[in-house]
Amino acid sequence: MRILITAGPTREPIDAVRYIGNRSSGQMGAALVSAALAAGHEVTLILGPVSVAMPSVSRRIDVETAAQMHQAVLFEFPSHDLLMMAAAVADYRPKHVHSGKLARKGSLTIECEPTEDILADVGRMKRANQRCVGFSLEMEGSVARAKEKLARKNVDLIVYNPTNTMNSLSVQAVLLWADGREEKLAVLAKAEFAKLLLGRAAKLFEI
Amino acid sequence: MRILITAGPTREPIDAVRYIGNRSSGQMGAALVSAALAAGHEVTLILGPVSVAMPSVSRRIDVETAAQMHQAVLFEFPSHDLLMMAAAVADYRPKHVHSGKLARKGSLTIECEPTEDILADVGRMKRANQRCVGFSLEMEGSVARAKEKLARKNVDLIVYNPTNTMNSLSVQAVLLWADGREEKLAVLAKAEFAKLLLGRAAKLFEI
Repeated sequence: MRILITAGPTREPIDAVRYIGNRSSGQMGAALVSAALAAGHEVTLILGPVSVAMPSVSRRIDVETAAQMHQAVLFEFPSHDLLMMAAAVADYRPKHVHSGKLARKGSLTIECEPTEDILADVGRMKRANQRCVGFSLEMEGSVARAKEKLARKNVDLIVYNPTNTMNSLSVQAVLLWADGREEKLAVLAKAEFAKLLLGRAAKLFEI
Repeated sequence: MRILITAGPTREPIDAVRYIGNRSSGQMGAALVSAALAAGHEVTLILGPVSVAMPSVSRRIDVETAAQMHQAVLFEFPSHDLLMMAAAVADYRPKHVHSGKLARKGSLTIECEPTEDILADVGRMKRANQRCVGFSLEMEGSVARAKEKLARKNVDLIVYNPTNTMNSLSVQAVLLWADGREEKLAVLAKAEFAKLLLGRAAKLFEI
């Protein structure tokens, strides 16, 4: 398969030095890339700013913001069979980016707007022979929100995982399929989980 | 000398996964620590979340937020001769931290308040036999703002450097003394700059 994997956080600039970030370490993405390469697949990686070491791939696109990741994914997806959207893309970005460095004086209000919805856009452009795996990082007990995303965004399989997955070496996920199936997994090391998920994703093409 | 060095950025939580960060890499702090150890000084390092390798010191305190760094500096400063405040401490933090993960819906407004002013507090508690070196990261041409900080915060020496110093391996700084002297330096590698600055800081004790 030709697999497109996104990984890491995005950063949304507030001014020349400050940004809104998130705690994604990129470890899940790194595990997926390793598992995909080990299984002989061709991998394109679209990567936000991370500090963990990433396995080297034939094609890697470094991005910073959600807008850049959106553009890269929409450009790359048509030439791939499968998208695994492991990146923790910012949902919000400051409406106005100050070109200088904001001086410290009084209070500061940062008005934010929603970023592009990458999964939803991919869901709209997806061909019959393509598949898409999404990730839904939620507080515990919010499987309902993950299910709603699955249907609304035309995703084939969503990985629901609790927020404490970030920066952790292990993951306890629930897999949610478009046909309503649910699979609750045990606590797994990210490497084991990546291998399992890749197997489930391969089976999506038999549907 | 017993030198207290702060390094790296701080992160100010917005919710369980998002935060306001800045582009400080911690490289300047790492260079200062290396130069201080090489010169035989005793170093305590107070460090924000960085991904660069830090030289090992006998005493290291890892912090995340400006409030934690403020508390650590005020606790440590009395037992040190010199503070070198190389950390890029956030000037603002969200007023309210959401305990969960904010869902993406509509727009988002983040109300921020100023953080503790660490340098100013150190300036107030500084004994006659202690010295303090501050850093002022400003847009080009804002030396005036750095000078104003120097006087208001009772700092002995301020390093004015332009915002493009962040994540760069080199630095072009202007040193500003409390007595009004200014020293404009050439572009230097951070290691060279650290050695030079440490020499200047040592001379502050002869004043």
